[in-house]
Amino acid sequence: MIPPSFHLCLPTWLADMLPPPERIFATPESRMSLVIEMARCNILRGSGGPFGAAVFDLDSGQLIAPGVNLVTSVNCSVAHAEMVALMLAQKRVNNFSFAAAGLNAELTTSTVPCAMCLGAIPWAGLKQLACGARESDARAVGFDEGDKPPRWPQLLEKRGVRVLRDICRKKAVAVLQEYRRLGGEIYNGKG
Amino acid sequence: MIPPSFHLCLPTWLADMLPPPERIFATPESRMSLVIEMARCNILRGSGGPFGAAVFDLDSGQLIAPGVNLVTSVNCSVAHAEMVALMLAQKRVNNFSFAAAGLNAELTTSTVPCAMCLGAIPWAGLKQLACGARESDARAVGFDEGDKPPRWPQLLEKRGVRVLRDICRKKAVAVLQEYRRLGGEIYNGKG
Repeated sequence: MIPPSFHLCLPTWLADMLPPPERIFATPESRMSLVIEMARCNILRGSGGPFGAAVFDLDSGQLIAPGVNLVTSVNCSVAHAEMVALMLAQKRVNNFSFAAAGLNAELTTSTVPCAMCLGAIPWAGLKQLACGARESDARAVGFDEGDKPPRWPQLLEKRGVRVLRDICRKKAVAVLQEYRRLGGEIYNGKG
Repeated sequence: MIPPSFHLCLPTWLADMLPPPERIFATPESRMSLVIEMARCNILRGSGGPFGAAVFDLDSGQLIAPGVNLVTSVNCSVAHAEMVALMLAQKRVNNFSFAAAGLNAELTTSTVPCAMCLGAIPWAGLKQLACGARESDARAVGFDEGDKPPRWPQLLEKRGVRVLRDICRKKAVAVLQEYRRLGGEIYNGKG
């Protein structure tokens, strides 16, 4: 039977590790450290791939919503960390565009977004994208990042989305490498 | 408070218009006609943009799951018709890859996928993509399709996904034009 709905749940361990709501993340490094720690916990808990992401309000410095990769545990190829964070954050602000909700929003992601997540960014009304590990770092452990347009950072900037790269890259890469060491599944469109 | 989960529901009218489960869609045109009709009902019912999609099993000819654009009604920029269909179909087959589930799956979409939905295709283990209206048809009514890599159909073919285009294009374009006539919202990342 065709399922009439789709339910995406954050793992319970993630709620337990979240900071108190009043915590202020003033720097790109502080925001990135949180998503890298989420990515690390995600592989240790076995809930998905080595990727974490979150949406932050740059004006207040507060976390709007977190996300981790849930592809294997939820059986959903769309459930990349960035997409999970966007869907939950939009539910929280009750708007499909952070800009329309009056927010100066950053998507922070532990690894540069794949082609799907990159394509999702302009539709969400984000003002900034902050990335940890590079595409080449993801490829080095076996992940496919998809076919992106050449010079995608410039294309995002043209659309009014600032792009920060290599934020805490070393720590972000360490999680990718730990995933490989643990024998984690490389799941892109397998079969 | 951070929402612990995200729930995506098909509109109730959609369940009512679905064919009986044993119905066989043997041709690209028969599959496309269903998703175009879904797109048409979606705008008349006010549940979202003028886009419909579905995942079909090409071996049996049966519908696995439908999707319509729910961006404005669900407040989720990710809820494009293609993404909704992929998430529901993967839930139904209990696998994040149709190929891994042993299925010869087609994503049928009333308009060529935007950059996000295009990026999602390789991760889903699809074997075929069938498109109705062209990118230029979507742009002509005001929709932004995002930044895609040049020659994306060839890139998909290289990944083992056949691409069919211009299936029932005229009927698909008529729905896009009807949306504009009705004053439908152009919602891409607005703000």
